[in-house]
Amino acid sequence: MALKSFIEVHPDSHFPIQNLPYGVFRPVPGSAARPGVAIGDYVLDLSEIASAGLFDGPILKNSDCFSQLNLNKFVAIGRSAWKEARATLQRLLSSTEPALRDNAALRQKSLVPMNKVEMLLPVAVGDYTDFFSSMHHAKNCGTIFRGPENPIPANWFHIPIAYHGRASSIVISGTDIIRPRGQGHPTGKTPYFGPSLKLDFELEMAAIVGPGNELGKPVDVNEAADHIFGLVLMNDWSARDIQAWEYVPLGPFLGKSFGTTVSPWIVTLDALEPFACDAPKQEPPPLPYLAEKISKNYDIALEVQIKPAGQDESHLVTRSNFNHLYWTLTQQLAHHTINGCNLRPGDLLGTGTISGPEPESFGCLLELTWNGQKPLSLNETSRKFLEDGDEVTFTGCCKGNGYNVGFGTCSGKIIPSHP
Amino acid sequence: MALKSFIEVHPDSHFPIQNLPYGVFRPVPGSAARPGVAIGDYVLDLSEIASAGLFDGPILKNSDCFSQLNLNKFVAIGRSAWKEARATLQRLLSSTEPALRDNAALRQKSLVPMNKVEMLLPVAVGDYTDFFSSMHHAKNCGTIFRGPENPIPANWFHIPIAYHGRASSIVISGTDIIRPRGQGHPTGKTPYFGPSLKLDFELEMAAIVGPGNELGKPVDVNEAADHIFGLVLMNDWSARDIQAWEYVPLGPFLGKSFGTTVSPWIVTLDALEPFACDAPKQEPPPLPYLAEKISKNYDIALEVQIKPAGQDESHLVTRSNFNHLYWTLTQQLAHHTINGCNLRPGDLLGTGTISGPEPESFGCLLELTWNGQKPLSLNETSRKFLEDGDEVTFTGCCKGNGYNVGFGTCSGKIIPSHP
Repeated sequence: MALKSFIEVHPDSHFPIQNLPYGVFRPVPGSAARPGVAIGDYVLDLSEIASAGLFDGPILKNSDCFSQLNLNKFVAIGRSAWKEARATLQRLLSSTEPALRDNAALRQKSLVPMNKVEMLLPVAVGDYTDFFSSMHHAKNCGTIFRGPENPIPANWFHIPIAYHGRASSIVISGTDIIRPRGQGHPTGKTPYFGPSLKLDFELEMAAIVGPGNELGKPVDVNEAADHIFGLVLMNDWSARDIQAWEYVPLGPFLGKSFGTTVSPWIVTLDALEPFACDAPKQEPPPLPYLAEKISKNYDIALEVQIKPAGQDESHLVTRSNFNHLYWTLTQQLAHHTINGCNLRPGDLLGTGTISGPEPESFGCLLELTWNGQKPLSLNETSRKFLEDGDEVTFTGCCKGNGYNVGFGTCSGKIIPSHP
Repeated sequence: MALKSFIEVHPDSHFPIQNLPYGVFRPVPGSAARPGVAIGDYVLDLSEIASAGLFDGPILKNSDCFSQLNLNKFVAIGRSAWKEARATLQRLLSSTEPALRDNAALRQKSLVPMNKVEMLLPVAVGDYTDFFSSMHHAKNCGTIFRGPENPIPANWFHIPIAYHGRASSIVISGTDIIRPRGQGHPTGKTPYFGPSLKLDFELEMAAIVGPGNELGKPVDVNEAADHIFGLVLMNDWSARDIQAWEYVPLGPFLGKSFGTTVSPWIVTLDALEPFACDAPKQEPPPLPYLAEKISKNYDIALEVQIKPAGQDESHLVTRSNFNHLYWTLTQQLAHHTINGCNLRPGDLLGTGTISGPEPESFGCLLELTWNGQKPLSLNETSRKFLEDGDEVTFTGCCKGNGYNVGFGTCSGKIIPSHP
């Protein structure tokens, strides 16, 4: 019999008892931030569950990890604690367990309607790294910027290419994004300066790092999964004109650092496990430090919608899937540490834009409109790049047998540059 | 009459009463970290001075910023607090002021011999950014990697180019650096993999950000100095073989992220002010958002020494100067925020390698040995790149009239890769 909660969960919900993603929230404005898990239309307040003594397993019994302002302390403990918490919460929320179900006072304190809460960043991100792991995205960008001969750089099939991103400007879903100002390629003698004319989204997901590693001690690729707590959706907003002018020779900087939006709920690898699938075969074979015994992706359907200002409806602009990634999460993490670089609990590892092979599965407007050459039709309007007032929403969802394991949404609206 | 301390300070010392740089230290192993300032051969414990009620100015009187584990809270307050603290400390340490001079118990508690203390990172670095602001360095690197035609990218004279660095692997001077492993360019079919064969130092300085700015609110270039607390020496260790193979198209990553060493003492802009000098004339003129009323560098003499394993003596390998920078600190900071990117207190902004025009003033071995083609002679041995056991030490010093304002040293020793 399928696991079922005493809380009624709609079959379309992203948050049944099989999921239980972690986030950080305020139950009412101004109250203290605290960890919670999503269950149907509710958030279960883990600080209340911990206070009630219901985390009674050997690892979490005496831990204060759920009375923190973020999840960093919990994710730092490691997979055994994550498994213990998941088992405890699935038991507590199940239809057959009375401890919470039949305790009206505790239910009242600990179950908060999701539409009342304010969601916050689930972790304090020490360092944010962004990979470049979709072959289709690498090929499309290379073709657009450097031409169709050898669009993918020679190193790409050997290295999970990445760059350091900006941690300070990571924001939670729902935060407005101010159109950045900056320099673009000169058409005459001096560069363009002003609001970006080529503002774009990038459809990504990101891993939240668990325990991490000490400086100088690389993580083995076959143990890398123990350092990944879970995944979120991520919009790596990009100003293509700023990026194109600045990125030689040191990579993207201000074209990205004005804002990066993440979804509030971290879906754990344990919840995603039923949706695991084989990663693409890699040819040439990776170097030994990247050759893993099990090379795993996840079947996570991803969609992007744009709602222009003044319109009532959102328009679907792409459908992609996490399983299009060439380099796996575990290869990304192992590569990141092979030089001794230390990862810390709560670090964020973005996948890079997740584009599929078909034009309707491309993960950003740069690719979808081929750098503005083929505008996208959105009902009575069209888009080469994002306009002020556009609201961009990502969703991600795994379809189970009669249930979903979903990520909710990751959204942001473009507001005009300050004058 | 020159300002003089009741503490005897040798004329060659980097730390007279005119300097008073800030750091964080433990007086004895295992004790709590606390802020201090360097004075001669002593560290003045600011937590003790604050406890004794001697910070009696209006801003710091009731602040707990000196009972923190790092300087982030102090630097966040801003220039008025920095000026108040400097005035208080110069008065307390002066030869004419009895409050500390004549209080033996307080002197005993608050003045710790520098050779007894353990220095720690002075700030918790949220984000670390590295610029590329020496024209000579940009030209040399461009010539080495891309040839002598147009060695400097077209954007360089318009943009203070930078990339995001890795914050987690920033370490304090004296920390050993483990030779990183990684991939290098294939000579046959597969890339090289193993310990880096081209390990290098990069002579840099770095600014410590003060109050910073909110997301979406750029800092005006003419107000940018108020957001810079002070400077440290920085060694941006670089694995040239890893960097050269990985950096297209997203910039340096594992070639840098295995370790970045900073000196322990932050010399404030107020202490450096007597050594201010004009920055180079910029042609073409910068865009209006980078055009500043006063374009200022500092005359800071920089040296690098290498001490090979088993040798008793260090060898001077380069002499450079902070005043070789083309883009100023304030232009770097204003550019960083022009897209709305937020800087936070304690963020680190590296200058990039500071090379002068002459070959003996180049700031890294890549330039000094012209990518290994002209080995450097070090007494009875020679170097193309760093060998295991090499200890690299930077110093930086401003020469005043009868006194120095110095940075002490920034050093690190290369130890072999783990097998």
